[in-house]
Amino acid sequence: MNKKNNRPKARLPRGFRDRKADEIAAERKMLETIREVYESYGFDPLETPSLEYTDALGKFLPDLDRPNEGVFSFQDDDAKWLSLRYDLTAPLARYVAENFQFIAKPFRRYQIGQVWRNEKPGPGRYREFTQFDADTVGSASPSADAELLMMLADTLEALELKRGEYLVKVNSRRLLDGVLEAANVPLDDSTTRGTVLRTIDKMDRLGTKGVGALLGEGRKDESGDFTKGAGLPNEAIERILQFVAAEEIEENSSVKLEALAKLVAGTSGEQGITELSAIFRILNDCGYGPDRVRIDSSIVRGLDYYTGAVFEAQLNFPVTNDKGETIVFGSVGSGGRYDDLVARFTGQTVPATGVSIGVSRLLSVLRGRQTVKSSTDRLVCVLVLDKIEAPDSFRMARELRDAGIRAEVYTGAAGMKAQLKYADKRGAAIAVIAGSDERERDEVTLKDLDLGAELAKSVEDRAEWVSEQPAQISVPRVKMAESIRAILDQRKG
Amino acid sequence: MNKKNNRPKARLPRGFRDRKADEIAAERKMLETIREVYESYGFDPLETPSLEYTDALGKFLPDLDRPNEGVFSFQDDDAKWLSLRYDLTAPLARYVAENFQFIAKPFRRYQIGQVWRNEKPGPGRYREFTQFDADTVGSASPSADAELLMMLADTLEALELKRGEYLVKVNSRRLLDGVLEAANVPLDDSTTRGTVLRTIDKMDRLGTKGVGALLGEGRKDESGDFTKGAGLPNEAIERILQFVAAEEIEENSSVKLEALAKLVAGTSGEQGITELSAIFRILNDCGYGPDRVRIDSSIVRGLDYYTGAVFEAQLNFPVTNDKGETIVFGSVGSGGRYDDLVARFTGQTVPATGVSIGVSRLLSVLRGRQTVKSSTDRLVCVLVLDKIEAPDSFRMARELRDAGIRAEVYTGAAGMKAQLKYADKRGAAIAVIAGSDERERDEVTLKDLDLGAELAKSVEDRAEWVSEQPAQISVPRVKMAESIRAILDQRKG
Repeated sequence: MNKKNNRPKARLPRGFRDRKADEIAAERKMLETIREVYESYGFDPLETPSLEYTDALGKFLPDLDRPNEGVFSFQDDDAKWLSLRYDLTAPLARYVAENFQFIAKPFRRYQIGQVWRNEKPGPGRYREFTQFDADTVGSASPSADAELLMMLADTLEALELKRGEYLVKVNSRRLLDGVLEAANVPLDDSTTRGTVLRTIDKMDRLGTKGVGALLGEGRKDESGDFTKGAGLPNEAIERILQFVAAEEIEENSSVKLEALAKLVAGTSGEQGITELSAIFRILNDCGYGPDRVRIDSSIVRGLDYYTGAVFEAQLNFPVTNDKGETIVFGSVGSGGRYDDLVARFTGQTVPATGVSIGVSRLLSVLRGRQTVKSSTDRLVCVLVLDKIEAPDSFRMARELRDAGIRAEVYTGAAGMKAQLKYADKRGAAIAVIAGSDERERDEVTLKDLDLGAELAKSVEDRAEWVSEQPAQISVPRVKMAESIRAILDQRKG
Repeated sequence: MNKKNNRPKARLPRGFRDRKADEIAAERKMLETIREVYESYGFDPLETPSLEYTDALGKFLPDLDRPNEGVFSFQDDDAKWLSLRYDLTAPLARYVAENFQFIAKPFRRYQIGQVWRNEKPGPGRYREFTQFDADTVGSASPSADAELLMMLADTLEALELKRGEYLVKVNSRRLLDGVLEAANVPLDDSTTRGTVLRTIDKMDRLGTKGVGALLGEGRKDESGDFTKGAGLPNEAIERILQFVAAEEIEENSSVKLEALAKLVAGTSGEQGITELSAIFRILNDCGYGPDRVRIDSSIVRGLDYYTGAVFEAQLNFPVTNDKGETIVFGSVGSGGRYDDLVARFTGQTVPATGVSIGVSRLLSVLRGRQTVKSSTDRLVCVLVLDKIEAPDSFRMARELRDAGIRAEVYTGAAGMKAQLKYADKRGAAIAVIAGSDERERDEVTLKDLDLGAELAKSVEDRAEWVSEQPAQISVPRVKMAESIRAILDQRKG
């Protein structure tokens, strides 16, 4: 173990990351806000395990090109395959099927949890991330969808996004099915349907022309690579593009619904119109107008399992990304109705609808806007100048904590200068110094680290500054906690 | 997929479990309390990923009989092996080694996270559970150990365990090494050392006689099975048993330390005496007496990697276990000094000490004593009696939420009776009923579900009760939220 070439290298696995205090504190605050909104709507928390039997997770993977990949799987002692969950919906379906007779239906639950994807990692694309889901299982009513839409809007506003900075966009899979039906594209061919859906999903990147090409023969991109298309006839392509373009005609939901109704008249899509009408009647009645939730026929969502309403919450203000580029951020949450997931287990269709928030994406936006800040209190470092007197430092820290102040004692071996450096590096507000001089006078010295840093920047004559030490005051030992509290409160205000 | 025999079975994998609202809410409250204490001591949160390279986790597994098992592992695309972490200490060592030059030292962090063990599941023994760790890395000072011991005691009291209901017990590996050295048991033979440690750890189960047998030739248990022993000579066994028995002589730490010092005089164990003395000087000085923290030479901890102080927090009141049996619960947190974990990566010894709380174990005790209760507010169910009026139900729920009341609308398809049953099953306090009668009078009916259940129990003449319906009141629509708040507040008080 002491030979150098036997030592393992200390490194993060590809596509994973460590997260530090600032981000964790901000995320905790954000999750707490979402949790409060969800609980106010009557959703209760549920926790399922990280691992499920692979066959229970099924093949509802986002990346259909690799149906058996995309997950981390291994074989258990009894030869059964286990996988790390890739989302929170498949485990919910397992839970509901397993406990169907015991749960009150409609069953509402929220779940916060990590999910894992065995995918090629890339910049900002991690293989472990957190999702925050809310689902209602056992209700076929459009009111269950309406509720999730209102809850999503409420959540974004509780996170201090202003009205107009976000939009929840709604569509229905049934409308698209109706359009395909009207264009004589066979609906039982799930591959064609899935290809069409995923192609429409690329609208904002490829535009009408690119999507049209991919729906037909295929498309050659800038690099000259050719992607084979879905091979639909021209009439079908035109109908689909006309349907998708309908998003632009009108903001008012009833006018928009009328226009869409014409495109799916006489097809199964009519049920989609009925359902969307019921959803928007509730939304309008509760005051959720098109400034918060609106119909958008270009929203399809990539997942194959949706069967009815689909929705997506988008931010529409520019955000600076990791590379310093200004981009419109796009989706921070999405969901829809999926009526067949429980049937995989029981054979019985159980209507369900749900919404999922991409925690890391939303957090990065909110942190950029500083609407979610670390709420951690400032730290005070108590130095140890004389080892034999260490217990005294611990007593001081104890007093500070009793006064509600975060305090730590330096436990390393370095001298005073290095200890002050350490306190700075830790982001401490104040260092408490009590050497033999101070002890003799029954005092402590408080070094104001913020002020010290400020002054060090502005004062020209360093020698003068050092001699005057304006960032340092001595106070009676018994007034230590009180004096520190006063400095911290002043800093806050 | 529709054929019955193609359907997967909906079932939890062996050794995993689903957790519901009550437990999750109680755990959240408990973790929050621990977090506050740890942050008050200057510990910051850190999050490492669930997966690490297998070689980075090493073989510091609790179950040394299966050095390469005990973890869930799989091979990545690039043929490298990944494992789910089995504790939070090995990932911390990786983090510190990888970021050594960037972090302020001593480095303090806490981490809350799930860990996984690929072990045979049993009753109450799960393969995924939560740990709450705090560690100080880069300090060789006994003051870092003393701090963790005080923090552990503070944490248990913050969780409303009374003084006398718990004890933090401390020992040092160096003392045991000194005893082995005095008895001429070779210390470089890590197998013998580990066997001796794990044997002593069985003291409370096997007693002095059983442990003595296992340290020597071996032991035959009640079933007649023979376990081979460590094969130590009698003199060594006697010394070890004498050392372990020293725990009983005296509660005062300095007297106890003197007695232990005699047993390790002239050996490397003397350093252990020096370190424990320094730890207890701080503890005594800060008022942490033997009613909170004390020396106990029978504490060894099974893990091989400890190098100095080891400690364990024990509860000493009877608890009712899952089988309804009354037991003394034992350890809820433990830790110690481990100075070699970072050296695995860098070759450079980095002194470290840490403490880990077994979250599920502690939670089950606290829930049994009801000191940690779900803080979830009571729920109000708004019924939907007339589908066309559903938006009105949603408006009412919105009003209730705006008044700070948890409210949900029934989104299923059932009639009023079934909706009331649903509200009961959901544990709702009140059902809001607004049919056409109520709407005409501009009123709502509030059904007090708690009171209803109470009355249904006590009233003999059911017919009379139904006709009078004392659990039901009608209030003006505009006074709905106010009236519900009054009922809920009354219930609380």
